[in-house]
Amino acid sequence: MQIAMVGLGRMGANIVRRLMRDGHDCVVYDVNPDSVAALVAEGAVGASDLADLVSKLEVPRTVWLMIPAGLTGSLVDQISPHLEAGDIIIDGGNSNYHDDVRRAAALKDSGIHFVDIGTSGGVFGLERGYCLMVGGPDEAFAHIEPVLRTIAPGSGDVERTPGRTGELAPEELGYLHTGPSGSGHFVKMVHNGIEYGIMAALAEGLNILKNADAGVREAEHSAEVAPLEEPEFYQFTIDTPKVAELWRRGSVISSWLLDLTAAALAENPTLDGLAGRVSDSGEGRWTVKAAVDVGVPAPVLAASLFERFASRGEDHYANQVLSAMRLQFGGHHELPAGDVLEAGGRKAE
Amino acid sequence: MQIAMVGLGRMGANIVRRLMRDGHDCVVYDVNPDSVAALVAEGAVGASDLADLVSKLEVPRTVWLMIPAGLTGSLVDQISPHLEAGDIIIDGGNSNYHDDVRRAAALKDSGIHFVDIGTSGGVFGLERGYCLMVGGPDEAFAHIEPVLRTIAPGSGDVERTPGRTGELAPEELGYLHTGPSGSGHFVKMVHNGIEYGIMAALAEGLNILKNADAGVREAEHSAEVAPLEEPEFYQFTIDTPKVAELWRRGSVISSWLLDLTAAALAENPTLDGLAGRVSDSGEGRWTVKAAVDVGVPAPVLAASLFERFASRGEDHYANQVLSAMRLQFGGHHELPAGDVLEAGGRKAE
Amino acid sequence: MQIAMVGLGRMGANIVRRLMRDGHDCVVYDVNPDSVAALVAEGAVGASDLADLVSKLEVPRTVWLMIPAGLTGSLVDQISPHLEAGDIIIDGGNSNYHDDVRRAAALKDSGIHFVDIGTSGGVFGLERGYCLMVGGPDEAFAHIEPVLRTIAPGSGDVERTPGRTGELAPEELGYLHTGPSGSGHFVKMVHNGIEYGIMAALAEGLNILKNADAGVREAEHSAEVAPLEEPEFYQFTIDTPKVAELWRRGSVISSWLLDLTAAALAENPTLDGLAGRVSDSGEGRWTVKAAVDVGVPAPVLAASLFERFASRGEDHYANQVLSAMRLQFGGHHELPAGDVLEAGGRKAE
Amino acid sequence: MQIAMVGLGRMGANIVRRLMRDGHDCVVYDVNPDSVAALVAEGAVGASDLADLVSKLEVPRTVWLMIPAGLTGSLVDQISPHLEAGDIIIDGGNSNYHDDVRRAAALKDSGIHFVDIGTSGGVFGLERGYCLMVGGPDEAFAHIEPVLRTIAPGSGDVERTPGRTGELAPEELGYLHTGPSGSGHFVKMVHNGIEYGIMAALAEGLNILKNADAGVREAEHSAEVAPLEEPEFYQFTIDTPKVAELWRRGSVISSWLLDLTAAALAENPTLDGLAGRVSDSGEGRWTVKAAVDVGVPAPVLAASLFERFASRGEDHYANQVLSAMRLQFGGHHELPAGDVLEAGGRKAE
Repeated sequence: MQIAMVGLGRMGANIVRRLMRDGHDCVVYDVNPDSVAALVAEGAVGASDLADLVSKLEVPRTVWLMIPAGLTGSLVDQISPHLEAGDIIIDGGNSNYHDDVRRAAALKDSGIHFVDIGTSGGVFGLERGYCLMVGGPDEAFAHIEPVLRTIAPGSGDVERTPGRTGELAPEELGYLHTGPSGSGHFVKMVHNGIEYGIMAALAEGLNILKNADAGVREAEHSAEVAPLEEPEFYQFTIDTPKVAELWRRGSVISSWLLDLTAAALAENPTLDGLAGRVSDSGEGRWTVKAAVDVGVPAPVLAASLFERFASRGEDHYANQVLSAMRLQFGGHHELPAGDVLEAGGRKAE
Repeated sequence: MQIAMVGLGRMGANIVRRLMRDGHDCVVYDVNPDSVAALVAEGAVGASDLADLVSKLEVPRTVWLMIPAGLTGSLVDQISPHLEAGDIIIDGGNSNYHDDVRRAAALKDSGIHFVDIGTSGGVFGLERGYCLMVGGPDEAFAHIEPVLRTIAPGSGDVERTPGRTGELAPEELGYLHTGPSGSGHFVKMVHNGIEYGIMAALAEGLNILKNADAGVREAEHSAEVAPLEEPEFYQFTIDTPKVAELWRRGSVISSWLLDLTAAALAENPTLDGLAGRVSDSGEGRWTVKAAVDVGVPAPVLAASLFERFASRGEDHYANQVLSAMRLQFGGHHELPAGDVLEAGGRKAE
Repeated sequence: MQIAMVGLGRMGANIVRRLMRDGHDCVVYDVNPDSVAALVAEGAVGASDLADLVSKLEVPRTVWLMIPAGLTGSLVDQISPHLEAGDIIIDGGNSNYHDDVRRAAALKDSGIHFVDIGTSGGVFGLERGYCLMVGGPDEAFAHIEPVLRTIAPGSGDVERTPGRTGELAPEELGYLHTGPSGSGHFVKMVHNGIEYGIMAALAEGLNILKNADAGVREAEHSAEVAPLEEPEFYQFTIDTPKVAELWRRGSVISSWLLDLTAAALAENPTLDGLAGRVSDSGEGRWTVKAAVDVGVPAPVLAASLFERFASRGEDHYANQVLSAMRLQFGGHHELPAGDVLEAGGRKAE
Repeated sequence: MQIAMVGLGRMGANIVRRLMRDGHDCVVYDVNPDSVAALVAEGAVGASDLADLVSKLEVPRTVWLMIPAGLTGSLVDQISPHLEAGDIIIDGGNSNYHDDVRRAAALKDSGIHFVDIGTSGGVFGLERGYCLMVGGPDEAFAHIEPVLRTIAPGSGDVERTPGRTGELAPEELGYLHTGPSGSGHFVKMVHNGIEYGIMAALAEGLNILKNADAGVREAEHSAEVAPLEEPEFYQFTIDTPKVAELWRRGSVISSWLLDLTAAALAENPTLDGLAGRVSDSGEGRWTVKAAVDVGVPAPVLAASLFERFASRGEDHYANQVLSAMRLQFGGHHELPAGDVLEAGGRKAE
């Protein structure tokens, strides 16, 4: 089928390539003419502006926006006057699902369908395909299903879940109609919240392994700080890059994020040059806020988010307050930097 | 090579089968003679007791114990008098690594090697192979490497980590010498701690999805409880079994634990009959205690453990105390069971 | 000075009483005429409706709303047409500070000042006074300071903070101008977030004390579940009501919430009749959401909130998912209710 | 009554002073003769070594050890040969209760009573008295009750808990017999665990207040990072020292730790010179380990401990791993130091 793509960054361009490979017709636009030209060279139809783009589409028109979330609202406003009832706008970016709900409501009277698609797959999506979570009206979903089927990974070499039989369901091919507008980004948001939790579980575990030599290091520090209570149990020097590689095979925690961890540690075994200031995107935050809104406990997801905040020093004032309190109630002075081991430290308070 | 297996439960028996398939000679013993007979019928040499078992072994003897952790100490005490310097005792069960450290120290003078092997793989290990984390002396590791290579999954269809070249390293075949005695179970312990974290991340995320209809349910409860602040954002009825299946393909959280989740939800989509009382084994607990000992933050791993405790009602007294305090300071009475939504509840305190 | 009070529930009526005791003139209104009559009998001027109320006020008029947060918006809309530039509307309820920011902006053109006051003190406020966090324009704060001074606790018998000298500052008298409109409820919101954390710390600690006899109870359960690893260390039967009372004297955790805990446990030492279903009001939730918005880690405050959600069973689906996963990967069946101790439980996974 | 004190540091010396003021006879010893001389000048009987100390005591002898926990075992070993059945050794330091249980068992055959006393009160104890949690045999408790009564704060100006009548119970005077040997330090351990939780709740809350100006600071950073979603709600510049002072009066979170916070912020409002590297003593760690042992959820207490670990950089390796993973799956580079606000940051993953 025919589809328009607005926004030809890495993901937008790769989705277009994946679509063209499978025989779909793509009309493409980007504020950067070079990006347009590159895809035209590969077989796409280029557009010089949004009006031009729309004029090149067959009815019902389908326009996929693959742009930074902050620009989506403006683009929808610019393009919707050119569209008519039955046409479809797809937001494939990382918008907050609140915006989807608002945009779908705003477009309702015009009859233009708003479809939000959460996409996961990262830089590997061109080859592996993208996992697609699709929110929007049934009619619109049915219309775009052919392109979804192309963009999605398909069943690939993933073993079929026991008990599933017959024709492969959409979710077995890597795309799913999750419900009305907003639900696609909602499911993607929670997906990323889970991703934070899994990443944190792996990172915390590896940190414990890394510190399994505390009993050895302890000896070096014996003069300055109180001893570990049982140093004999922390005499291990664990090779974390090898362990990450090992766990990829046959272990119950094998996962794509573990694959990435193993790859990262193979590439840079000592993690040189990494300051450990971990960014977070909106999804992890929105997930925690959604959990709070609906009253569902999410301590693991929240903890993984808060660890990222702390990694960037956002716990600083709280820690200063704690140090200040300790000074007050017992004259406890802060340890100088470097005295990090104090497993058996005692205070009389 | 030749190896003895003591303990022919599911895992012990399957490891023997996997070894025999690959041409190793197995001498087997269990307190249950039927278990012995079953494997003898498949080609193993049976033993009538521990002395008999040892008498059938070539020097250096290798005895693998695959028994409940609570019995390991007693078995080591019973079997070691029959062994001599250079022989090897393997504990392949789920022992606390503290016990390994103690046992290796106790055996030191005898010259008997103590090797602890953390094994992951569950009921699927017979086919997939077991991921093996091996602690113990270099000499003993070298001696048993042929059997490790058989029991481990091998490289299988796991894609090679970018940057790794040349002959496959042991960790790429699914087994690793992690360090001295105790380190195998230590690494396995942390592995299970991570497993708890990943499981919890998935479960919390799915719970948020399940409750994405809070705005719909809210309407039903409007008379009894205060309204959600923005019910328009929680109008989704998400099909969690389909979402779990979807994420298996192309998403960054694809993982074996997600595969299991999808399988569980395919088999029992409504989770009928499950009370949600989640057990925990020792490893998750030991991981948190190790993190505390070495002074490494592990909020995600700890939270995942504490959720399990709470699932079994172990938070009950704390919650009663909270209710009692609320009664004191504002006359706030507990809601009756059933009034679970109170997102916008207000109190004047 | 003269002030109008709208909403004569427990807190509104008690504030009026505290004001009249100190010589202020109060004009009062409530939808319930009996509530009006009761205070008129104590010396207040009654009003029959909002127009009547406003007509009885001297310029600049000051109207304090002490009503459920859900009704504040409607009341502001009803009363503001009767007011004029320089008049003051006070919201003394538990509104979300977002609403204050919006209301102040909406009233800006009219010249009516909007003041939000977070009040803490509960049922004890009539005698102890209320702690007041006041957001709004300087001019309005200056005008109402006399009533704030009366409603606040004053310096009372609280020891002066070392280093503070000279005339008592407002914060030493129990009221503070925290900044522009919204800041009063913002500070109160965080105050309640902290309250949740303190309550949870006390409740968790008492729960640990309550379970210090796990080694004793263990013996009873020995047939069903695996033993505690070191039962000799959990042989204590701690009298938690006595401990709570003890800590009120000389300990570093002495606090008003501990006083309440001791009172609750003195009244009902076994906490009979409390199901432990702990409600939460909006403030704890908003605090966590604010922390997420500004990117500040708040794991303790979030955990205390999530514990309340879990106490009401909102973790149920997550726990079912965990049980379902465990069934999949190892055939682990849930323990029947009652087998809650499994400290040393083992699984072979 | 007569009592010996070994260890004349700040707490030991102050306890002796408090005892002598109330007419008790104190025999004192310290490795530092000047410390002995100082108290002799105030009326104590000095001892030149442990044998001398014991020789000066009436039967049954009572020896209070107030020394670093690491030295207690050695002192008990040195002094017990000089004692006989019916004599009492008190450990008033911060020992792990495990050690008490072991020491009481080791002394059992000798008939010497071992009493462990958890003491809270810090530098203010000389004036305020110390809160005493006492574990040990009934007979020993009864014998030392007169000195406990002196050291404890007494009822002071703490309001009596409603419902308590008649003669003041020991816990109302600030000391309590908590059970057998070990239980005193166990209760003190949990007390300190709670203390960590309360401190963290206050620190996290103040940190949120401190960052209530994120919407203002956001504007400065607009070029570098994505905007806060709703900057209009984070326009407050809160004076945290004033807020801490305010909350001391009439609020539900008034507490001694809040008093200290207010004092700390009055003394150093900008917290200059504090790096925020927060130490922890053993008790917080032991509390979490005890919770894990008995299977009781303690997410708040654990989170408060882990925040301290993170404040000292112990999360570094975990954070490096997270950064390394993010680099792998999306080419996400770390933000340079300084770009700490990224509330609306987006990533395409």
